Formats: sequence, structure tokens, C-alpha cells
Amino acid sequence: MAVMKVHGNAMSTSTQRALACFYEKDVEFQFVNVNMGAGEHKSESFLSLNPFGQVPAFEQGDLKLFESRAITQYIAQEYTDKGTQLLLPGSKETMAVLQLWKEVEAHQFNPPSTKLVFELHYKPLFGMATDTAAVEENEAALAMVLDVYEARLAESKYLAGDHFTLVDLHHLPNAHYLMRSSAKKLFDSRPHVSAWVADITARPAWSKVLDLQKH
Amino acid sequence: MAVMKVHGNAMSTSTQRALACFYEKDVEFQFVNVNMGAGEHKSESFLSLNPFGQVPAFEQGDLKLFESRAITQYIAQEYTDKGTQLLLPGSKETMAVLQLWKEVEAHQFNPPSTKLVFELHYKPLFGMATDTAAVEENEAALAMVLDVYEARLAESKYLAGDHFTLVDLHHLPNAHYLMRSSAKKLFDSRPHVSAWVADITARPAWSKVLDLQKH
Repeated sequence: MAVMKVHGNAMSTSTQRALACFYEKDVEFQFVNVNMGAGEHKSESFLSLNPFGQVPAFEQGDLKLFESRAITQYIAQEYTDKGTQLLLPGSKETMAVLQLWKEVEAHQFNPPSTKLVFELHYKPLFGMATDTAAVEENEAALAMVLDVYEARLAESKYLAGDHFTLVDLHHLPNAHYLMRSSAKKLFDSRPHVSAWVADITARPAWSKVLDLQKH
Repeated sequence: MAVMKVHGNAMSTSTQRALACFYEKDVEFQFVNVNMGAGEHKSESFLSLNPFGQVPAFEQGDLKLFESRAITQYIAQEYTDKGTQLLLPGSKETMAVLQLWKEVEAHQFNPPSTKLVFELHYKPLFGMATDTAAVEENEAALAMVLDVYEARLAESKYLAGDHFTLVDLHHLPNAHYLMRSSAKKLFDSRPHVSAWVADITARPAWSKVLDLQKH
């Protein structure tokens, strides 16, 4: 089978989401660094991989994918027998519940957490001023989501059930940066959420993702 | 098998997304109206179906789901042999490409189009003033997404390939309201996007969804 290539940047949360999956599945791939500072993600050759000009992009022979969650789904499904089992194959009900919590991450957790990571992590990193009104608004939205998570995680160790799955994995990059920001309090004040974040960010695959930033 | 119930409101775009799928699949279900004006979606009984207090919610015996796209995925997968085939069962590559465009709808099309539907449809409906700066910002974002769609739809009749799938279906509610607003120009100015919107909004299943508003 053709070699799998992930085109991305170690600083990008979406790239990190895809990479966490490759490391959990313990599959070989080649990481192709995209120099975003030099605008490589808007170059013609990159746009042929992802017309939206965003990292990551995935390539395996003729198969070209983008959108981090489409890449993780493909890898988790294609390599069910390797590394961590990230889906819950079995009853259709179990799979429907996993799908439901994947959608919750995408439509409830991701919008406010992405805005907070932008305001609290990337803006200071690039010397830009944080918009405190935006922080307040998105912290309030995220708090409501984490209230639902607190109740859910009181019933099961992970969001889709008793096993770590793609659902939890998709939260990793934003949760990681928020735990290093003033939004940490939103996680700390909810015991089950707090234990869950500590658990998922301690996974060896996630450490490997962070190690890539050192190269 | 237990009867399928969809709790929702005919005016809600997320409810419409789920209903379009039930009609395409031609499966029997019971529609339970949630009176949002009376705050029924925030009642204790509704919160037991969806802790986020949002329509739609789905119930089939012990199985409770929410998030419109998790409901459509479940129905499309569970009733593959009924009504319209909304997935592309076959090669893993074809399914990965469908998954990719589902993610594009969720993360590229949905955010700006939902904000535009709020500003241009719901706000006037409820006598609220439209925020013209928000309209301008989101029209610019949507235009960039539709540029990618225009190129894609020049190559295949529908977003995931040559057949109508869940991907196209997920666009229906927002596309419908935007075609009845000042944002219509964004679709009209792109010939392939324009033909695609005309095609998908003309589907009998979509007319049935709109008919529900008359009851």
C-alpha cells in the first residue's frame, strides 16, 4: 500500500488532532512540514491537497483527504486491528452513541474552545491583544458544555462510554491549550471533567504529538 | 422494533435536517412537536432527551440520540435498503471522501450559513434588527466556501460524488433560507452551485419537510 503522508504543522491544533490518531493506532506515516509562516498552505501545490488551504491534509497514493476529523475516522476505521481501538464496533446503538458524542464535540465543544484557544494561546504567542469580551462570551458558552460533560462523565469514564475513543481524542488539542490558560478554571471546577482531561492528556500518543514541536 | 419518535419543531433548521432524512429513507416515525415559544425544550422532560436543550431529539425505545447529523447518520446506516441510498457503501476510499465532505459541511459551510440564516431569516421574523456587519463578515466567509464548492461541483454532480447523499442533505435547511434572502446572490453567481441548490431543494422529501410548517 502507498505510504501515508500527513502534511501539516506541529503548532496547528487540527494537525495535532490528526497526529494523535496516527500515534494511537501505531501506524507508520510520513510527516510533511507545511511552513505556514511562509504561506505554504496557500500555495498551488498545497491547494491541490486541500482547496480550503488549511492543514492538515492527508495523502495515500490517489486518496487525498482533509478535515482532521475525516482523516481520524478513516485511520480508525481502516486500521481497526492496530493500536488503540478508537471506535466501538459492536451494536448499532453503541456506534450511534459514539457518533452522537462526535457531533457534540464538533458542534458544542469545538466552536467556543477554538475561539478561546485563539484568544488565549495564539494571540499572545503572536503579540496580538486578547479580546476580553470574546473570552468572556466563549467561556460562558464552554461552561455550559462542560456542565453537560460533568453529568455525562459521572456516568461513564469517557464521553462515548467506558473506553477512550475518537470522541475524546478529538478534544485533545483544544483541551491541552485551555489547561495552560486562564480557562483552566472551567475544567478544574468540575471534578469528573478535570479527571477526564488529566487522563486523556496523559496518554503517550499525545506526548508524541507535543514532542513534534521540539523538532 | 419500538416506534421512532422525532421531538422537534418544524421551524428549526436542525429539526428540518433530521426530518429530510426520514422522508428520504421513507421510514415511519412519529413527530412530537416541541413548543419552543413556551420553552418546552428547556423543560426537565426534554432535557432528559437532550441535555443541551436543543431540538431535535430522537427516541426509539431505550435509544436516545440528539444532534441532527448523528440522527441522520443512524437512520441512513440502519435503513440502507429503504428509500434513497444516502451513503456510498462500497470502497473505503469512496466512504472516506463522503466523510470528508460531511466534515466540510459541518466546519466550513455550517458556521457562516447558520449565522446568516439567523441574521437574515430568524431576526426579521422575530422583529429583531439585522446586524449588517455580521452579515458582511459571514457572506465573505460563505463566498470562499462556495468558491470551493463551485470547483467541486464542476467535477461531480453532488458534493460527495455523482449521487445525492447525506452530505448534500445536511446543507438543505440553511441553503433553503439563504435562497430566500439577500445572500441568494452568493449562490446565483456560481453556475454549478446554483444548479446544485436548485436540484437538492426540488427533492420531494424536502417539500414534505416544508409542508410540516403548514400544520
